[in-house]
Amino acid sequence: MANKEVTLGIDIGGTNTKIGLVDKTGYCLSETSIETDSEKPFENFLDRVLASVEEITGNLNEGVDIKGVGIGAPNGNYYTGKIEEAPNLHWGEQVPIVEKMKERTNLPVTLTNDANAAALGEMKYGVAKGMKNFVVITLGTGLGSGVVVNGELVYGHDGFAGELGHTTVFIEGGRDLPTGRTGSLEAYVSATGIKRTIFELLAKRIYPSELRDIPYNKLEAKDITIAAQNGDKIALEAFEYTGKILGLKLSDTVAHLSPEAIILFGGLAKAGDLIVEPTKRYMEQYNLNIYRNKVKVLLSNLKGSNTAILGSSALAWTELEKGK
Amino acid sequence: MANKEVTLGIDIGGTNTKIGLVDKTGYCLSETSIETDSEKPFENFLDRVLASVEEITGNLNEGVDIKGVGIGAPNGNYYTGKIEEAPNLHWGEQVPIVEKMKERTNLPVTLTNDANAAALGEMKYGVAKGMKNFVVITLGTGLGSGVVVNGELVYGHDGFAGELGHTTVFIEGGRDLPTGRTGSLEAYVSATGIKRTIFELLAKRIYPSELRDIPYNKLEAKDITIAAQNGDKIALEAFEYTGKILGLKLSDTVAHLSPEAIILFGGLAKAGDLIVEPTKRYMEQYNLNIYRNKVKVLLSNLKGSNTAILGSSALAWTELEKGK
Repeated sequence: MANKEVTLGIDIGGTNTKIGLVDKTGYCLSETSIETDSEKPFENFLDRVLASVEEITGNLNEGVDIKGVGIGAPNGNYYTGKIEEAPNLHWGEQVPIVEKMKERTNLPVTLTNDANAAALGEMKYGVAKGMKNFVVITLGTGLGSGVVVNGELVYGHDGFAGELGHTTVFIEGGRDLPTGRTGSLEAYVSATGIKRTIFELLAKRIYPSELRDIPYNKLEAKDITIAAQNGDKIALEAFEYTGKILGLKLSDTVAHLSPEAIILFGGLAKAGDLIVEPTKRYMEQYNLNIYRNKVKVLLSNLKGSNTAILGSSALAWTELEKGK
Repeated sequence: MANKEVTLGIDIGGTNTKIGLVDKTGYCLSETSIETDSEKPFENFLDRVLASVEEITGNLNEGVDIKGVGIGAPNGNYYTGKIEEAPNLHWGEQVPIVEKMKERTNLPVTLTNDANAAALGEMKYGVAKGMKNFVVITLGTGLGSGVVVNGELVYGHDGFAGELGHTTVFIEGGRDLPTGRTGSLEAYVSATGIKRTIFELLAKRIYPSELRDIPYNKLEAKDITIAAQNGDKIALEAFEYTGKILGLKLSDTVAHLSPEAIILFGGLAKAGDLIVEPTKRYMEQYNLNIYRNKVKVLLSNLKGSNTAILGSSALAWTELEKGK
């Protein structure tokens, strides 16, 4: 029997790196996770990644033929093949990961950021299959985004298109951010953003709330979701406010791109309708009449622990198809 | 001698319609202007347009071969070929101008809005020649925009991408607009927008100003430019504020698209550095670090009375090339 064609998907996070082998249909044959540990040299990281690949390949019941490698990483630049000034990775300001990985594997290697990879994953295997114009919003610690226009991921002139988390909501008086800017979208709409909203509301309102017993450093987005599902008024108001700010800024995105859909992905998206419903409602309210009731707000339907791997593998498949 | 190949560029405005014959290099062989007069039936408008085309063609010293027609019109939808719900045109809610024009001319006919046509004009003949990722901002009575990604104009899923004038600057307390929305960009950044800023400043400041003698209904953008050139403090502050708001919102656009350049076009752009300098300065201030000092802010270099005709003709040429 011929070996099965797969791509290697690698998703690098500040803490963990996920690695998996994915076929053309989006089926993940095998996956694993290692510590990123970027305090150690970059070559050590590569050694550990490649050892993991050998391990998961060896454990399979069938032979595989790895056709290419897709890497999703914070500040991963598609054009330069480098991870550039990523705040949570300590391998240096410019990490030439594509060049190094090519040297070690002799395979085609492609890099982009995690949110762009997520958008390609949705287009190839997920809810955006068949769509030509859509935007994926990843709601994790921050807010990332991937923009697809005319069936192609938008990298822009410089490789860094799709950073909607850094658009401005409030010109003055906005929340501080580690970027040095204030009032940006991700300070309001992300796992961290909704937590900050909760603490504003705990100060502003006098209702009892189960969230009054949790310190700032312990509160997680899933606690807020559970509280809202239990009818906690503070948590419900926080989702309403988060949806308002996201809906407002998405109406700006719609005015730029007139997409078919906005797709929500990542931790906070697991809150489902708690976040989708107010987002959609406010987006429609702020949309210009020519866009009303035309733009869908959808949840990602990529399943399992490996959605980030699926995105990175989709990047590799997409590049291989371009080369043909 | 063989006839010269040209396209017919038509730019429809609420008051006037401009018509011209343009060759592949962007040279306008002949042009004219008629009243749009949309109170009369649409067929009457078509009759008058075609009579004008015959007239300007007849006046030429050389024979021409019209290869296609490009039409720029408010709310012109590229996909449907219809002018949809244009507030200043009274031919009905949906005007099937492409179909009608094809029937009358037997030529390929393409429609989009005036700002999209301007973007194609810049890419084909102007300052964006050779660029693959840029945004044109047209500063007239309102604010229009055309977005180019990967060398193609972005129409989006619905044909209405690139309406940056309707993005939101102020969530609450913003200026009213005829769209029913408040606080949108074009209420601040446009010929009308800067006039509104002048009147706010005349109320807020106590400096003398030559603009204190002009009533609201008489003040034009060019009066404000002249006053600023004369050192009028109110006018200078109005340009500073206009540039601040435009720069802020362009930093959002940069975060979406990572363009090579932003190109300013139209009446208010004639103020030159009075508008370019603060726009660029504030855009850089609001830009995320990864975009700093990478995005140019340029003035359109399309010259003459016929820049709108050039855009429409570029639309026709672009379509003809796609068909090849």
